[in-house]
Amino acid sequence: MRGEPEGLGAGPASQQGMRRANLALVLGVIARAPRSRAEVANGTGLTRAAVSSLAEQLLAAGLVVEEGPAAPSGKVGRPGTALGLNPYGPGGLGAEIGVRHLGACVVDLRGQVRARRRVERSNEGREPEAVLADLVVLLRAAVAEAGLAPAGLTLAVPGLVGAGGVLQRAANLGWADVPLASGLRAALRAGDGGAGLAALPIRIENEANLGGLAERWLGEGREDFLYISAEAGVGAAIVLGGRLLRGARGYAGELGHVPVHPDGPHCACGARGCLEQYAGGAAVLRAAHLAGARGDWAALVADRAAAGDPAAREALAGAGRALGIAAAGAVNLLDPAEVVLGGGYTRPAPWLLPAMRAELAARVTVRPWSDDRLTVSRLGRRGPLLGAAVAVVRGIIADPGPLAAPGAP
Amino acid sequence: MRGEPEGLGAGPASQQGMRRANLALVLGVIARAPRSRAEVANGTGLTRAAVSSLAEQLLAAGLVVEEGPAAPSGKVGRPGTALGLNPYGPGGLGAEIGVRHLGACVVDLRGQVRARRRVERSNEGREPEAVLADLVVLLRAAVAEAGLAPAGLTLAVPGLVGAGGVLQRAANLGWADVPLASGLRAALRAGDGGAGLAALPIRIENEANLGGLAERWLGEGREDFLYISAEAGVGAAIVLGGRLLRGARGYAGELGHVPVHPDGPHCACGARGCLEQYAGGAAVLRAAHLAGARGDWAALVADRAAAGDPAAREALAGAGRALGIAAAGAVNLLDPAEVVLGGGYTRPAPWLLPAMRAELAARVTVRPWSDDRLTVSRLGRRGPLLGAAVAVVRGIIADPGPLAAPGAP
Repeated sequence: MRGEPEGLGAGPASQQGMRRANLALVLGVIARAPRSRAEVANGTGLTRAAVSSLAEQLLAAGLVVEEGPAAPSGKVGRPGTALGLNPYGPGGLGAEIGVRHLGACVVDLRGQVRARRRVERSNEGREPEAVLADLVVLLRAAVAEAGLAPAGLTLAVPGLVGAGGVLQRAANLGWADVPLASGLRAALRAGDGGAGLAALPIRIENEANLGGLAERWLGEGREDFLYISAEAGVGAAIVLGGRLLRGARGYAGELGHVPVHPDGPHCACGARGCLEQYAGGAAVLRAAHLAGARGDWAALVADRAAAGDPAAREALAGAGRALGIAAAGAVNLLDPAEVVLGGGYTRPAPWLLPAMRAELAARVTVRPWSDDRLTVSRLGRRGPLLGAAVAVVRGIIADPGPLAAPGAP
Repeated sequence: MRGEPEGLGAGPASQQGMRRANLALVLGVIARAPRSRAEVANGTGLTRAAVSSLAEQLLAAGLVVEEGPAAPSGKVGRPGTALGLNPYGPGGLGAEIGVRHLGACVVDLRGQVRARRRVERSNEGREPEAVLADLVVLLRAAVAEAGLAPAGLTLAVPGLVGAGGVLQRAANLGWADVPLASGLRAALRAGDGGAGLAALPIRIENEANLGGLAERWLGEGREDFLYISAEAGVGAAIVLGGRLLRGARGYAGELGHVPVHPDGPHCACGARGCLEQYAGGAAVLRAAHLAGARGDWAALVADRAAAGDPAAREALAGAGRALGIAAAGAVNLLDPAEVVLGGGYTRPAPWLLPAMRAELAARVTVRPWSDDRLTVSRLGRRGPLLGAAVAVVRGIIADPGPLAAPGAP
């Protein structure tokens, strides 16, 4: 089956638009692997002359570097010099506000981590200003360590993000309607020691979305999957055709409030029997006879299960059953190629997976399904922060025009 | 929130590709409303000269016509002639195989119905060849009545469609692995009286997908919605950002097998408590004390409910509760702007809606929801067949290049 017909172009193919599109085309090819100008021409269908001109712009902007002779092509003539992404070019700055930690990360254009900082700190109920001030200290330290000038900043948060970088609701932080983008900019401006971070483009993004995108970008080449993660709540990201599905208002992925047993226990959201009442941190701790335990619930219950504690094992099996029922509904509805368990679910996965697999096998029957389509993220809890930093770099590679324009810094 | 960064172009912006893209751009503007060449130039950013040249090609291909003087623009000079879609140009041929009917429909380039035929016929368990032979008789009659040469044929079927136009599974027809595209072409070829239908591009498509697309194209301008329909089973289509979501393998939209009560009754699919066990035709008839009744279950139960039959009303309320639970899960996951009830659910909608609304209100609480976001299709059961015919025409408008190429028929 083919996709439905769509218009071929969203606007006129102007000369300026063509040049910008071709800059992205050339940088995209180089981003996949270092290439000589001739190889770029072959790979894109552009002329040698056009590629040389575009490459000059990318070199001048510090986005690519000459990497020495390209592999011999077997053709007559001087071997070309390979062009690669510049590891000292503009980087991506990622930040994370978790319920119990803060994180900062700098990656270079190639997606390599150049600095990563994390501090454990309970942020529940704290004033956003105080949390942002702590976060800025961490960000400055990471940037100084990395020795790269970031071209943008993405902040991962455990909640719903609305227009203008406003965190609408983060139940586990106790925050609602917090203008995080402007708050973070103000915090960066206060005493900016010339690092210029306050001038960066800032984007606020849901942590599960960034975890899903990290899986897309840094994982094993997955393009169509449902990513399910846990911190205090249950989060999910839907990636189809390589793209994050955001929904009409940006709220897609609220798997935690999909009904599992419609007449089940009351949920903080006001409904009954939501997935979070079976697979969220508080519910699993309760089932494991650890209600009210502080700290990292997933690590705690996983450690108990690993030590053979039957209550912990049964709690995780119950969470796995509920995750499997909710995931089966999502698979029937969305037809992803895979379901990926990530974030806080990574460590207890060995005790979640058997029940999840059983539910998926029993409930996804109209079309083929197999156990190996449920997998565990290798990024684990690092996903959202890595995704935040890499999102900046992916944005540059997808559209280098603004950085590579004649006269751009 | 913005979409994730994506490459600006999928290939080099060649001259030929530019011309094809610009043909689509011009035709797309004209398709929204008749426009003079000057207005097209303003609306697209193309030069007057380029628009004139592209318009010549579209006129020569019979895709557009001169419609007489455009509305005065208030500018100096001769008013331009408005260009509009040609109502006598190539049309779209839609076909439908239902469990109890066959349908054929021809629309012109403007999407106006020029002929529509429908015959009631039980197709359950019949040989596909015999059904296709009957369908071809209907298609020929519709094309003869319409007096238009169709440019393509789309067939709506109540089942899962795989690559190459193979109907993989249509439980309610009792068909599996039927190569419908090649079968339909062979049936059209047999005794083709020169109408040339056997040479048309043929596409096979799930009926709920086409019902959803019809809602997108012919409804009230919706771009983000979950469309839920019933014939014998329960179908759904997900349209987000104006595009049909197909999933990794083309199986998205199986709402009928989303678990509603995980420990509920056994379903024909092998699972338990699927939506179809509460809101499918057989289940509703059973609950209405009409088990085994033949004919159109939705009309039958709706008529009983309208006459005040308490069992019919309670059966529909129960179906509505289950639909509401499944829809609430889908809304939490996908964040559509609306949920649209269509197809067979249109007639009994008055008795389904109250319970559906109550479940959605109770279970979609993390983000704003309001009752008016659950609506009923105005296309009703005509949706899939209309969608099939209009899909052909939308394909032409989205990419007129193949029909407008110099030397094309």
